[in-house]
Amino acid sequence: MKRGEFELIKKMQGRLKTGGDRVRIGIDDDAAVVKSPDHSLVGTVDLLVEGIHFELFLNRPRLLGRKALAVNVSDIAAMGGTPLYALVSLAIPSHLDDEFIIALYDGLQDSCERYDLEIVGGDTSRSPGPLFLDVTVWGEVEKPVKRTGARPGDFICVTGPLGDSAAGLQWLLHEKGTGREEEVLLAVEKGVEMENSPTYLVARHLDPRARVDAGGIAGKFATAMIDISDGLGSDLLHICQGSDVGAWVDKDKIPISSCTKEMADYLQQDYFKWVLDGGEDYEMIMAVPKENFHQLKEELCVHVIGEFKPKEFGQQVQVQGKKLPLLPGGWDHFRKL
Amino acid sequence: MKRGEFELIKKMQGRLKTGGDRVRIGIDDDAAVVKSPDHSLVGTVDLLVEGIHFELFLNRPRLLGRKALAVNVSDIAAMGGTPLYALVSLAIPSHLDDEFIIALYDGLQDSCERYDLEIVGGDTSRSPGPLFLDVTVWGEVEKPVKRTGARPGDFICVTGPLGDSAAGLQWLLHEKGTGREEEVLLAVEKGVEMENSPTYLVARHLDPRARVDAGGIAGKFATAMIDISDGLGSDLLHICQGSDVGAWVDKDKIPISSCTKEMADYLQQDYFKWVLDGGEDYEMIMAVPKENFHQLKEELCVHVIGEFKPKEFGQQVQVQGKKLPLLPGGWDHFRKL
Repeated sequence: MKRGEFELIKKMQGRLKTGGDRVRIGIDDDAAVVKSPDHSLVGTVDLLVEGIHFELFLNRPRLLGRKALAVNVSDIAAMGGTPLYALVSLAIPSHLDDEFIIALYDGLQDSCERYDLEIVGGDTSRSPGPLFLDVTVWGEVEKPVKRTGARPGDFICVTGPLGDSAAGLQWLLHEKGTGREEEVLLAVEKGVEMENSPTYLVARHLDPRARVDAGGIAGKFATAMIDISDGLGSDLLHICQGSDVGAWVDKDKIPISSCTKEMADYLQQDYFKWVLDGGEDYEMIMAVPKENFHQLKEELCVHVIGEFKPKEFGQQVQVQGKKLPLLPGGWDHFRKL
Repeated sequence: MKRGEFELIKKMQGRLKTGGDRVRIGIDDDAAVVKSPDHSLVGTVDLLVEGIHFELFLNRPRLLGRKALAVNVSDIAAMGGTPLYALVSLAIPSHLDDEFIIALYDGLQDSCERYDLEIVGGDTSRSPGPLFLDVTVWGEVEKPVKRTGARPGDFICVTGPLGDSAAGLQWLLHEKGTGREEEVLLAVEKGVEMENSPTYLVARHLDPRARVDAGGIAGKFATAMIDISDGLGSDLLHICQGSDVGAWVDKDKIPISSCTKEMADYLQQDYFKWVLDGGEDYEMIMAVPKENFHQLKEELCVHVIGEFKPKEFGQQVQVQGKKLPLLPGGWDHFRKL
């Protein structure tokens, strides 16, 4: 390790607030030693590669840091768990300066505070290629909610509007180089979220909030759950395949924000494509037995968008009175609508 | 995710033996759910980047997989812990075929069996740059052995010969393109380890064994411990800095294998440089109070190479009757010997 790298690592560590009473030995030793939870351990990892998962010219490092943790926290939440500890690996290309990396760490720390977890270790290297960011999060879960428990007759519920994230990305791509996108990125970083503006949509894309609240409540009422990272189509199919059931979705019941609809007008695009296939909304899809629904509804705002069916039914979505198949990975039939 | 990638991931998962009774939910859900250990949790991460930490032309994928896990297990062992669970992230450049990745997974599985741990999750992506392999290991520790407990008067002990790994690497670099290196790599992969041959040294470099045995025993007798990844010089300094002590090392007491000495003759290099600065031996350095030494020695083969001193003493190594300073990161004085 070069001297400069050592100093950078010290600076990075300095951005993190550590020393909570769960942590016995932190980032200064061979490995971290932390309190073992009373219930089961739940762990996940998410790899972000520049040029594949994100583009630096459409982002700010602090937002990248926040999202890198949030997407992992979302996976923990989708099991009904609570995040506790994170490890962060970073391979840094030579064109990124120390200021960039420190801002990225500030973003990681923002998410640590938001979700009450601690970064207890990591590894850092130079990269001869793009920026790589790999984050592992471990937490605790009492009653895991798998993908495999959905039964025919269970409601399909989602926890919030879909398509916002894709709308935000499309706006960024459209405005690239105009200077307006810089202003919005800065507003998102500062946490200024105006309802009727691109800021809201870009925040949904670059600064998503993991639904830890929903995950915790779902543990009591839902038979299956997944977070929407790939898109409603793909992620609903994951539950169907895991649970060996079919699914029927009513297009008109899917919650869609007015911002997304207006953005689709502005960009002259089809918002339904964003909703079904855009992904990265990080809302939850749950299977909820009808008898549990009213109790769930008292504790959490959810939207019923359809119903799980026997396997023979397949996966279908109802659009303008017609039933169309829900295809894995592409929703190609919808794209032609 | 493209169809081909999905199939590759299925193949990768197929190489892993999963379903031990510690694992409640494995690689098929949003996150893994595993049994929480009775004692403290211990976790570490190690990032391997092609072109920085390894070169594909000097390696075989199965060996790379074995080592990626072993170096993490070594960090867990250096805390006195036992490994239990791993998460593996992989960014794959387009020039590597499925066969390569499957062999890499076979290597990961080899190490899972060797150290009795399970891969419970991971993430896979394409890479527009080099191969990037990030492995996280979590385990259990009852009584952690930190870097910070060494006291003046404690013996400095190492668990095995140093310099072998660097000697193996130098041989590989020297023989590159002769065809002999291919033969030796294959022998290492198959586990043929002949004592008086490059195979032993290359195995020490590319297929190191984490000293989990030593870590467990040291928990009872040592006041500080670290594994030798950077080199005796750097890693001993980590203990000195952590424990606020000095150190004195007698060069003649450092265990060095006859293979390494013979290789130095053959390559006309100075083996002392490999010993002090080569790194990647993955033996342990421990601080052992004199009153504990005989008991430790009954349970574990260790070599006393010196003694921790008061901080004012600094870090010195005795060479041919002279005391020379032990410098961080470089051992520059020795290089000139």
